[in-house]
Amino acid sequence: MSDATEATPRRRRGRPRAGARSGASGKAAIIRAATQEFADRGYEAASLRAIARRAGVDSSLVHHYFENKADLFTATLGAPLRPDRAITAILAGPRAEVGTSIVRYLLGQLEDPKARTRVVAILRTAVGSGPGSRMLKEFLVREVFQRLAAASSSEDADLRANLAAAQLVGVLITRFVLRLEPIASTPTEELARRVGPVIQWHLFGTGEPLPALDAAVPASE
Amino acid sequence: MSDATEATPRRRRGRPRAGARSGASGKAAIIRAATQEFADRGYEAASLRAIARRAGVDSSLVHHYFENKADLFTATLGAPLRPDRAITAILAGPRAEVGTSIVRYLLGQLEDPKARTRVVAILRTAVGSGPGSRMLKEFLVREVFQRLAAASSSEDADLRANLAAAQLVGVLITRFVLRLEPIASTPTEELARRVGPVIQWHLFGTGEPLPALDAAVPASE
Repeated sequence: MSDATEATPRRRRGRPRAGARSGASGKAAIIRAATQEFADRGYEAASLRAIARRAGVDSSLVHHYFENKADLFTATLGAPLRPDRAITAILAGPRAEVGTSIVRYLLGQLEDPKARTRVVAILRTAVGSGPGSRMLKEFLVREVFQRLAAASSSEDADLRANLAAAQLVGVLITRFVLRLEPIASTPTEELARRVGPVIQWHLFGTGEPLPALDAAVPASE
Repeated sequence: MSDATEATPRRRRGRPRAGARSGASGKAAIIRAATQEFADRGYEAASLRAIARRAGVDSSLVHHYFENKADLFTATLGAPLRPDRAITAILAGPRAEVGTSIVRYLLGQLEDPKARTRVVAILRTAVGSGPGSRMLKEFLVREVFQRLAAASSSEDADLRANLAAAQLVGVLITRFVLRLEPIASTPTEELARRVGPVIQWHLFGTGEPLPALDAAVPASE
């Protein structure tokens, strides 16, 4: 995204000055500095303090615009979703609905074509071999998968979170990147019905039956 | 892959001459011509006849080296797996074991580091925005998903095959491309135990219980 309409910010690396910037140009400078910091150090190692220093602003200005590192990271991506926030909200709801809620949230948000285009680009970055891949992976592990794993609290919780993520990533790729049919044009609710129980089973399954699907296949062997 | 050790084949487009080439150089010329044909026309529209014409060889020479289009296509990719053949063999076995057999085959083949490196490259191509993506998609739809769907024979068979593919693609990407832990270092058999039933359920599920996993999560709400 271009910010050509704003005044070009002067760079004063290593010379933080409180109040040196404010408003839109300060925010844009912070996002530019953050993009660089995440690319150089990865998501885990990047710090809001170092980003403020790069941007030549006081740390308080970073905190004024961005609640935390996840907030700033998703801003650098232009991410249309906040999986970190959504997962927290979903996990606060009924345990039995977690799988279906996750699928419904994810695919529901991506019904917006702009969001979809952005997420396809982000998926391609994640699967690519550039530095963006590492950043995204660290972000997802820290802000999404570790929360999912904490919710399950079993000793194989991390693997369960990985497997749930694998099913979701696969649905996003087949539906939005490869655009396989019919998954690309199946309504969100139908996918929530078919994929939700699988997410639930990966995360919390102990052998309870998955619910019947309407279109049954005759058992044969 | 370089074929610098072979004599440089002369191109005689549009002038097929039986016996003009033979042996390794004829085969290499066919693979080069096929690579170009698939890139230009996609997997669906490419024909063995047109590939022979491009290579300047008789069709019979193409059929001498390659059984069919899938065979030639996987040769152009340097693909270490033959999902089209594997799926046919697995579907000929017991219906109840299809899900686990697919996972075991796929991950088992990829225990070889060379195969893994090649498949990561192919996955990146598939998810990328270049022409390779369309070829791979057409190949998978025609040679793998349509066979899976035919095995299920329910009216939602194509969607079921897509969802099974989504789970498999997601496992490949999280395990081999993103290398998330712990899924990246979980043994093949453990993943077959956890993912096999999901593939089975996507393909054939009618509401029967998925088997219990050992490490159970205490039910809570």
